[in-house]
Amino acid sequence: MQSAVLTEPETFEFEERSRPDPGPTDVLVAVGRVGICGSDVHYYRHGRIGDFVVENPLVLGHESAGEIVAVGADVEDVAVGDRVALEPGVPCFECDACRRGEYNLCPDVRFMATPPVDGAFTEYVAWPAEFAYPLPENVSTQAGALCEPLSVGLHAARRGNVGVGDTVLITGGGPIGMLAMEAARVAGASQIILSDVVPEKLDRARERGADATVDPSQEDLAERVADLTRDDGVDVAIEASGAAAAIRSTTEVVRQGGSVALVGLAGEGEIPLDTHDIINGELDVHGSFRFRNTYPAAIDLLASGDVDVEGIIDFEMPLSEVTAAFERTDDPSLVKGMITVGD
Amino acid sequence: MQSAVLTEPETFEFEERSRPDPGPTDVLVAVGRVGICGSDVHYYRHGRIGDFVVENPLVLGHESAGEIVAVGADVEDVAVGDRVALEPGVPCFECDACRRGEYNLCPDVRFMATPPVDGAFTEYVAWPAEFAYPLPENVSTQAGALCEPLSVGLHAARRGNVGVGDTVLITGGGPIGMLAMEAARVAGASQIILSDVVPEKLDRARERGADATVDPSQEDLAERVADLTRDDGVDVAIEASGAAAAIRSTTEVVRQGGSVALVGLAGEGEIPLDTHDIINGELDVHGSFRFRNTYPAAIDLLASGDVDVEGIIDFEMPLSEVTAAFERTDDPSLVKGMITVGD
Amino acid sequence: MQSAVLTEPETFEFEERSRPDPGPTDVLVAVGRVGICGSDVHYYRHGRIGDFVVENPLVLGHESAGEIVAVGADVEDVAVGDRVALEPGVPCFECDACRRGEYNLCPDVRFMATPPVDGAFTEYVAWPAEFAYPLPENVSTQAGALCEPLSVGLHAARRGNVGVGDTVLITGGGPIGMLAMEAARVAGASQIILSDVVPEKLDRARERGADATVDPSQEDLAERVADLTRDDGVDVAIEASGAAAAIRSTTEVVRQGGSVALVGLAGEGEIPLDTHDIINGELDVHGSFRFRNTYPAAIDLLASGDVDVEGIIDFEMPLSEVTAAFERTDDPSLVKGMITVGD
Amino acid sequence: MQSAVLTEPETFEFEERSRPDPGPTDVLVAVGRVGICGSDVHYYRHGRIGDFVVENPLVLGHESAGEIVAVGADVEDVAVGDRVALEPGVPCFECDACRRGEYNLCPDVRFMATPPVDGAFTEYVAWPAEFAYPLPENVSTQAGALCEPLSVGLHAARRGNVGVGDTVLITGGGPIGMLAMEAARVAGASQIILSDVVPEKLDRARERGADATVDPSQEDLAERVADLTRDDGVDVAIEASGAAAAIRSTTEVVRQGGSVALVGLAGEGEIPLDTHDIINGELDVHGSFRFRNTYPAAIDLLASGDVDVEGIIDFEMPLSEVTAAFERTDDPSLVKGMITVGD
Repeated sequence: MQSAVLTEPETFEFEERSRPDPGPTDVLVAVGRVGICGSDVHYYRHGRIGDFVVENPLVLGHESAGEIVAVGADVEDVAVGDRVALEPGVPCFECDACRRGEYNLCPDVRFMATPPVDGAFTEYVAWPAEFAYPLPENVSTQAGALCEPLSVGLHAARRGNVGVGDTVLITGGGPIGMLAMEAARVAGASQIILSDVVPEKLDRARERGADATVDPSQEDLAERVADLTRDDGVDVAIEASGAAAAIRSTTEVVRQGGSVALVGLAGEGEIPLDTHDIINGELDVHGSFRFRNTYPAAIDLLASGDVDVEGIIDFEMPLSEVTAAFERTDDPSLVKGMITVGD
Repeated sequence: MQSAVLTEPETFEFEERSRPDPGPTDVLVAVGRVGICGSDVHYYRHGRIGDFVVENPLVLGHESAGEIVAVGADVEDVAVGDRVALEPGVPCFECDACRRGEYNLCPDVRFMATPPVDGAFTEYVAWPAEFAYPLPENVSTQAGALCEPLSVGLHAARRGNVGVGDTVLITGGGPIGMLAMEAARVAGASQIILSDVVPEKLDRARERGADATVDPSQEDLAERVADLTRDDGVDVAIEASGAAAAIRSTTEVVRQGGSVALVGLAGEGEIPLDTHDIINGELDVHGSFRFRNTYPAAIDLLASGDVDVEGIIDFEMPLSEVTAAFERTDDPSLVKGMITVGD
Repeated sequence: MQSAVLTEPETFEFEERSRPDPGPTDVLVAVGRVGICGSDVHYYRHGRIGDFVVENPLVLGHESAGEIVAVGADVEDVAVGDRVALEPGVPCFECDACRRGEYNLCPDVRFMATPPVDGAFTEYVAWPAEFAYPLPENVSTQAGALCEPLSVGLHAARRGNVGVGDTVLITGGGPIGMLAMEAARVAGASQIILSDVVPEKLDRARERGADATVDPSQEDLAERVADLTRDDGVDVAIEASGAAAAIRSTTEVVRQGGSVALVGLAGEGEIPLDTHDIINGELDVHGSFRFRNTYPAAIDLLASGDVDVEGIIDFEMPLSEVTAAFERTDDPSLVKGMITVGD
Repeated sequence: MQSAVLTEPETFEFEERSRPDPGPTDVLVAVGRVGICGSDVHYYRHGRIGDFVVENPLVLGHESAGEIVAVGADVEDVAVGDRVALEPGVPCFECDACRRGEYNLCPDVRFMATPPVDGAFTEYVAWPAEFAYPLPENVSTQAGALCEPLSVGLHAARRGNVGVGDTVLITGGGPIGMLAMEAARVAGASQIILSDVVPEKLDRARERGADATVDPSQEDLAERVADLTRDDGVDVAIEASGAAAAIRSTTEVVRQGGSVALVGLAGEGEIPLDTHDIINGELDVHGSFRFRNTYPAAIDLLASGDVDVEGIIDFEMPLSEVTAAFERTDDPSLVKGMITVGD
């Protein structure tokens, strides 16, 4: 099978590899669609993300869906021919975090496209059947692949305690911000404000249902939020940009007693936060890391039409053009690129 | 002003009373619409609900909205001419429950149409301005009056911890069941099942978006729920009928670790519940009593169109025909009757 | 090795069995102490508990501790010579409940002494190393064995949301009630009331720190609780007796907005509960089933001396006298019997 | 009556004022003891704390207890002769925060010794009876006064979600740190580590039950915490020093999924926090501001002897020597000074 392998920064090489052999509890999936995530692009450009360094050739891609072509001997719940979305992180289920149900915090998780675990820019992937979720007929393979960033959004909305009637600010109009917006809406938010510095993303956010948008390079974010919320501030801020200025602004725009969910990783982790705001306003600042227990809900929401993910896709390109596709993601007006694998 | 006064069971008398004088922090409201609640009908028929006995003539009606015609000297946030929904319970804000924020549990609450506090089947009501919520232009006075039962539904969904992706069973297709369905949907429920023994109510529930309906007089509720949930049971059951059989069924239809919110009051409080189900399934059974902190969210949801309340109204009749209106509510196929006051 | 096997009701036979072979992730433990649980006695008397029927000879006992005498090839965290407490339930870590962290609700759990899984009234047990917790020097093997009922108590206090300054009623002065009392105290309860109908148990409860005790066969429980709580009721009731009358009383003794944790299983599950109390008082009734994530905390609390478990032991008898020991537990004044295994 | 009035920085003048007249729902209290809080000292030195500026002469002191000498006409629950602790903040009970039960976040709170509300360094104070809590005989007036900082500690432990079996780090050995330690212990913490740079405070912490202490000027705090927690980190960190370095350290010492409660206000609010730690470790960082619903629990815990507050008092001096007392608090080895008023 053909695999696109990152051999050094900015270099994909196509390797002919042998199809993986599914273990007794695994499925073998013919990959159909794989989203390009910002972390994939970061590995492509820099060969590392923080402490995670690509020391050996690595297959990127962790937003994937495809069709089961073989199953291990002990697999019961899914079958050959099922289209499935693959949850990319498989935890140990033995450690303290796993036992508490916080399996996204498992220190021994195997996560696709995080060194040394290969990802999905390849024709076939063997993966535990328990992390392969069948897609109903009315959920496309594209949408299945995007269960992954949707999960990030759903988890962030949970971590931020978004509830019915809440006003929510989302900073960042990339894929996570766009899908956190979907998540906030289905969690009952009655007013959603999205901020970004790219006009096309603000346009897209409004088209997708944002009640208001703010360009903080053009106007003061905190003042605008105050105007939109009778000076109260928002109930919840979900930070999905990773921009230092946006992260700093979160404590200023949230009402007394409100919540912040931090999702976007900044280049430099240390960022000045106003601890007077946090203490005097008795804010709750929650880190939000990947997701847990989200795939069934994500698929239900896609099947019911309550959330849309396909609308964030800007282009699809075949695996053979993966380098061109990665280069294209430099365009800041784009939200999501996707790779098609197979026919 | 004209007031419809319950003087003895099944007898409304129209009295000419003097307009109440708003205190310094009150507003005087010209009542526009008042919903007829099951508790009003119960007082009308029996002159009591449990320990609450109508010993003196009482004005019923606690689902009300109207227009402010005068304000007390210290009122700042609302003004003459504002259309407002009236939250019918005013707590003491001194007791332990109030200090914890559970003001719906205040033992000293003044609640409209609960003896000896008069309600809203009258032309004018004086009420604390802090419990009068302005309605935006696109929210009708009818909808404003129904913020009250909608609040009951929103609170029940909160008490039952309805979350994104949940499957919810609502037992009872009366106004509370119908509006709990709205509340469950905006809280993110991806599948809603409603049960009732009246076919017209099941039809209505489906029209209003129920994914499935069950008539437990025709088929086994628990079996049907199992079929609809891959044998898991629902994540949350909201009991809104007050029927003993429905209350008993809740522990059987909920999945391991799931929640029950009990809202509907049965005639006789003592009801056999399966404590083995509760313990072995580690269920959470939550009583849900009236509501708290719901009106702003209710109005936001009505303004955004995310919930509908007007669709549960079957008829409107003028205050002068209040007796006929009450008699009409005997029709089990009807969900909500409403009284119009003034022009 | 010698095993005490329940072959039919009221009949233990001693069988010479071969020592189990620990798998690669298991430890082999030379059993030291095993508590006799009410469920063991119930299997002994009736050959079944509800749907769990002893169809084949079964080794009882699930409150155990001992010393590791061999470890599987992949075991790293514990070693031969460690004294350990054994957590008796090993979940699948694949199902929805496990993924949510509610591993005590796993439908595929292997639980010692629950058919067909053998328990610990035997000389050696092989058990997953991840469920064997080393005991510090100052925690006795007896105390280690009683981590199991202590865990039930800790979990019940969590499920009941016992917090700092709370007033707690515990109904039932058996081992679970006594250890729920320890759990409530370390969770910050400032007043603990314990009820039972056996005077010796009330004496024991007072000796162990209960602030008040009530014999509901001699005085009205609800009245007494009202007297002790300025008519408020307790913040939390933990039901640990399984007596129908006690279960019924819980909704009456808890304050508005308070919590009930049901732990004790009644003979007959269906019990009339006052749903008016639950709804009007907006109570939270929580089932509490076994425990999860409790062993590390239990051992820490034993090591620090913050809780006492040894004081509930009434007698110790050797495995060879298991039948006499079981018969002795009929004495209602006794709280806990224990079997010693080995030297 | 004599009042010590701060007229300008570092200047107390004694004024003869007329006794305040209690309103109908107030009590008049003859002040007995008043603790000196760090905020009092800050006002004394600088005439301001952030945006709160002493523009007019102000009576400081908000940690007070005394004896009721008169009651307003409508006061029922307390009586002349009762010794009482005074909760120093009286909220509006009308705003959104109050209705949610978060009355400590009320923007219209009247808080003693916060301009323009006078405090308790005076002979008599009139205060709402609902915020005057009777002290049992075995709780001293000193202890009553220290219900205030104890409340700050109790609230911080709640905000940090300290639970049974938790390991807790408290940074800062001043009065708040010392009493947060009491609060963490009664909430079930099984291991408590306290850090400070003053050796006498570390000694005091160990005497008062800290399991370990760390001087971060002498050793690396994070390394020491790792050593003490098998490299896991603590479950909860409570930051009670207001030192920038301590605030920064919190995200490093907490385990994956753990909590931070920030209580101590730094001179400069903006402090670099490691957002990678917060996000990747999915931490919860909670601001903790003053307290709510703590006085009844605080008094119960003092009456039962479960917490000690008197042991943090270093000296008592009469109101006439208030200036000397304030100067004495400069000694970094001291934890708490107290003013005696009356005989």
